[in-house]
Amino acid sequence: MDSAYVINTLFALFSITLIILMVPGFAMLEAGLVRTKNVSSVLTVNVMIYAVASMAFILVGYTLAFGELQNETMSKWAFIMFQMAFVGKAINIMSGGVGERAKIFPLTIFTLIMGALIYPTVVNISWGTDWIKETIFDLNFVDLAGSTVIHSTGGWALLAAILVIGPRKGRYVQKQIRVIPASNIPLVVLGAMLLWIGWFGFNGGSVGSIATKEAADSVALTIFNTNTAGLAGALSTAILIYVRYKLFDITMILNGALGGLVAITAGPHLYTMLDSIMVGLIGGLLVVVAVPLFDRFRLDDPVGALSVHLVNGIWGTLAVGIFASDSAHGITFLNQLKGVAEIAIFVFTVSFSVIYIINKFIAFRATDEDQVQGLDVSECGLEAYPEFKRAI
Amino acid sequence: MDSAYVINTLFALFSITLIILMVPGFAMLEAGLVRTKNVSSVLTVNVMIYAVASMAFILVGYTLAFGELQNETMSKWAFIMFQMAFVGKAINIMSGGVGERAKIFPLTIFTLIMGALIYPTVVNISWGTDWIKETIFDLNFVDLAGSTVIHSTGGWALLAAILVIGPRKGRYVQKQIRVIPASNIPLVVLGAMLLWIGWFGFNGGSVGSIATKEAADSVALTIFNTNTAGLAGALSTAILIYVRYKLFDITMILNGALGGLVAITAGPHLYTMLDSIMVGLIGGLLVVVAVPLFDRFRLDDPVGALSVHLVNGIWGTLAVGIFASDSAHGITFLNQLKGVAEIAIFVFTVSFSVIYIINKFIAFRATDEDQVQGLDVSECGLEAYPEFKRAI
Amino acid sequence: MDSAYVINTLFALFSITLIILMVPGFAMLEAGLVRTKNVSSVLTVNVMIYAVASMAFILVGYTLAFGELQNETMSKWAFIMFQMAFVGKAINIMSGGVGERAKIFPLTIFTLIMGALIYPTVVNISWGTDWIKETIFDLNFVDLAGSTVIHSTGGWALLAAILVIGPRKGRYVQKQIRVIPASNIPLVVLGAMLLWIGWFGFNGGSVGSIATKEAADSVALTIFNTNTAGLAGALSTAILIYVRYKLFDITMILNGALGGLVAITAGPHLYTMLDSIMVGLIGGLLVVVAVPLFDRFRLDDPVGALSVHLVNGIWGTLAVGIFASDSAHGITFLNQLKGVAEIAIFVFTVSFSVIYIINKFIAFRATDEDQVQGLDVSECGLEAYPEFKRAI
Repeated sequence: MDSAYVINTLFALFSITLIILMVPGFAMLEAGLVRTKNVSSVLTVNVMIYAVASMAFILVGYTLAFGELQNETMSKWAFIMFQMAFVGKAINIMSGGVGERAKIFPLTIFTLIMGALIYPTVVNISWGTDWIKETIFDLNFVDLAGSTVIHSTGGWALLAAILVIGPRKGRYVQKQIRVIPASNIPLVVLGAMLLWIGWFGFNGGSVGSIATKEAADSVALTIFNTNTAGLAGALSTAILIYVRYKLFDITMILNGALGGLVAITAGPHLYTMLDSIMVGLIGGLLVVVAVPLFDRFRLDDPVGALSVHLVNGIWGTLAVGIFASDSAHGITFLNQLKGVAEIAIFVFTVSFSVIYIINKFIAFRATDEDQVQGLDVSECGLEAYPEFKRAI
Repeated sequence: MDSAYVINTLFALFSITLIILMVPGFAMLEAGLVRTKNVSSVLTVNVMIYAVASMAFILVGYTLAFGELQNETMSKWAFIMFQMAFVGKAINIMSGGVGERAKIFPLTIFTLIMGALIYPTVVNISWGTDWIKETIFDLNFVDLAGSTVIHSTGGWALLAAILVIGPRKGRYVQKQIRVIPASNIPLVVLGAMLLWIGWFGFNGGSVGSIATKEAADSVALTIFNTNTAGLAGALSTAILIYVRYKLFDITMILNGALGGLVAITAGPHLYTMLDSIMVGLIGGLLVVVAVPLFDRFRLDDPVGALSVHLVNGIWGTLAVGIFASDSAHGITFLNQLKGVAEIAIFVFTVSFSVIYIINKFIAFRATDEDQVQGLDVSECGLEAYPEFKRAI
Repeated sequence: MDSAYVINTLFALFSITLIILMVPGFAMLEAGLVRTKNVSSVLTVNVMIYAVASMAFILVGYTLAFGELQNETMSKWAFIMFQMAFVGKAINIMSGGVGERAKIFPLTIFTLIMGALIYPTVVNISWGTDWIKETIFDLNFVDLAGSTVIHSTGGWALLAAILVIGPRKGRYVQKQIRVIPASNIPLVVLGAMLLWIGWFGFNGGSVGSIATKEAADSVALTIFNTNTAGLAGALSTAILIYVRYKLFDITMILNGALGGLVAITAGPHLYTMLDSIMVGLIGGLLVVVAVPLFDRFRLDDPVGALSVHLVNGIWGTLAVGIFASDSAHGITFLNQLKGVAEIAIFVFTVSFSVIYIINKFIAFRATDEDQVQGLDVSECGLEAYPEFKRAI
């Protein structure tokens, strides 16, 4: 008994560490993707999200999500911290997509509400066993580590935010879409790889126990499948863009990998290796298809978060109903779809309302002048690379 | 029995890995905070400290620190390596604060003496059970993972070094303090976050065992509280500077987080969540207050190490006597203060003497010409970013 | 029984994570060492290698390497993924050395063949128990984690590639060797340190079990010795170049550390601490000696991979026959030499043939114009740092 408790706690601590490595992961990825004049601002948002959302979750959100539920399989401090490590991720997804024009202070206010109330409610509906579940919502879908709970939740919040805040100044001029290149590719690669590795803790840790032979197999399979879907997403994207453009666009390849990782997240413990390859391949393809599509709708998203997290969060949740359908245990495409839809409605409606109201008091959108100058000066009072002469 | 030995060894190896991740952590943080012309030099110092201090510790320092003490709870190789992973940190703190003007060769000589003799003596006094303890010193204070043993030790050595070496050329001109901005903010964020995560190994590993239910709870609580204090330090700093300047200065926010992490390090296993928040909040505030204060005294410290490590090392050690006072077990404010004071006197006196003597033979301070040109050329024979055109 | 299975699986997952951290490790190291105009290209190669080689290995290579061999000490998914994590490393070694002139598409084709066929054959010969072994080859040498199987294998493939592809345009002009400086030193340090830390998983995990007191001691000793050899390699290089040039060349010091790490990899479980120091010291010295030597033979290798991986892969394998010779168990210098030689012949011959044939269909070498402009534009369609004005 003790030995299971000890090893589960150790495994949770290992997983927590990997997930928190996603904080610099997201930070580096986004810092690499935006223009140099907005890099400090984007980095600050990432650090503030970790601080504010985590604190809000341990003080308020955790109880809302899990109530009096007491996990006996591991130290409660490890369990709370593992759950805490998740919360910022959903908000990172949202903040990345409104980068280069959203101001830090209103984002921080939204982070507080998301970390204390909105995200914990989603967790309660999906993973908790407390008061909201089975009263208002009646969900019964499989989402091991959050294709929906984290990734489409973040994606819906982002969509709401984009609708309120609008695109970056100069991005859509008349019928033109101006391409704004990533400013630091090594940071993009570093960030994406830290996210990839952090995912092992995210998905592996979500199995919840490693203390028996069966549990250890389930954890190892989960991590193996997670990685495999990332590989497949990178490959399908690479092949597609190479065939089309005869170029290897590394930012697209990495977004393809991340798309595969998001897609596998709902059911990595249920798939075979070939299922995982299929889920990941499609995940990569969806990114390639979705990125220009969102641009056509003038939904400006400098890091591709809608394509990676929202589209693949939906795809990954539905995929469980296709590849791991098991009606005896209630795993059906319809149940999965219902989970996707109900959480979509809840998160989008609430996020939109909250962002809309905050925006009435404190404008989210930086002025055109501040956007032209870069948010680093107006928001942080410093530049990210003050000694490097700008070519553009 | 075997099973406890195995799991403690595994947990130590996990902790070691996290602590050694602080080597690139410190390196990136300092490389980001100094000017581009000194980046290679600062990076080289970090790598040399890891190589020289670790080698000195495993060959000489370990025996001085722990004598014949044989740990039976885990593999001795894991125990030695865990202790080895600590030594460089104290010296990193010192080297960072004299960045942009201290030369590498004399720093390396000091590193050798610090790693072989000074730091091991401090460990012996504080954590060891051998000959020095209870003869010269009679300490009885709680310092789980080194608020004093690592952080103020490094801080006192830094203060001694600053007094001998002086400020950077051009930093204090008449009554003016010239602001010298950080050159690469993404590296600062990456470095600070690697340190943050490394701290989980530092503090969690210092509990010493994870092999029972109680031990696992203690480790998990320690890591949870460590993280919480970091969050609180970031938040108090962010709020204070936003209220004052309406700006989010990311370098200050991260230093606030690190201040909270230093402060929690003496007693993370003894605190409640709210204690940890208080310890961290005050840690962050102390950084904001201390940074301009050291500048007023013309103590030039480009990375804020005195504020983060010395001030919060002291605060964190005293905090145990406030928040976890337990006179039945001898945990009193007075015992904590005595620990702080005796180690302060020992480390400052010895470090000052050693640095003063080294400086007589090999000047620590780079010439004004070399400082103007940048230490990278004179010390390393290469530039950090040779292809990027300098704006300043 | 279950408990050993669980803890071995957990330890394998920990090791896997560290090894995969070497993907960004190699990527950052190489991105820092090449010129800015080739950074995206080099990064893309690293990501493609991870995706293609890993996928090839789990679909084809694993079975070729291990046949029906079923490991019962841990979850098979952890075992397969641990082996998968190795494969890309051998190819990274090769791709780094042909950086700045090799095109991505033919490199990807070679990666596919190497990951599916060549590397798995080497593993089968050296570590597997299946059909190839004891039929064609009759090897009996010690190579715990791949001084030969990974590092000289990668090195021989690199030598073959350099012979086919030739040096970078402008590197050797008449009798001159033009020095091409590294473009981003912080990335070099970050990458090298991630590799260093990843090595703990590489070598420690290769012990195969941690579940008994003896196994835990063996793992801890392995990781301790691995680190010690890295320290020694850094120190011998630093001392040698400081004595000679009065400069601390950080790229050489790090290559010295990596040389020590490669050298220890064949037998870290068999050495004393002093053995490890000797193996690492010599490893560092070999790097210093070998780098100019390869240049004299016009073998252009922008990252020093031949010196670090090929030379030290050989040295490390032979070192087992010197420092851990034990004829009762068949560990002799001659057996080690035989292992080095047979795998050298196999890998060099096959790699050369494959690269030669691929090159007939798809030229490996970028045109002179593309090299002058930088491969980022021609291969990836983007620049790594588009906003930074170039000084050279």
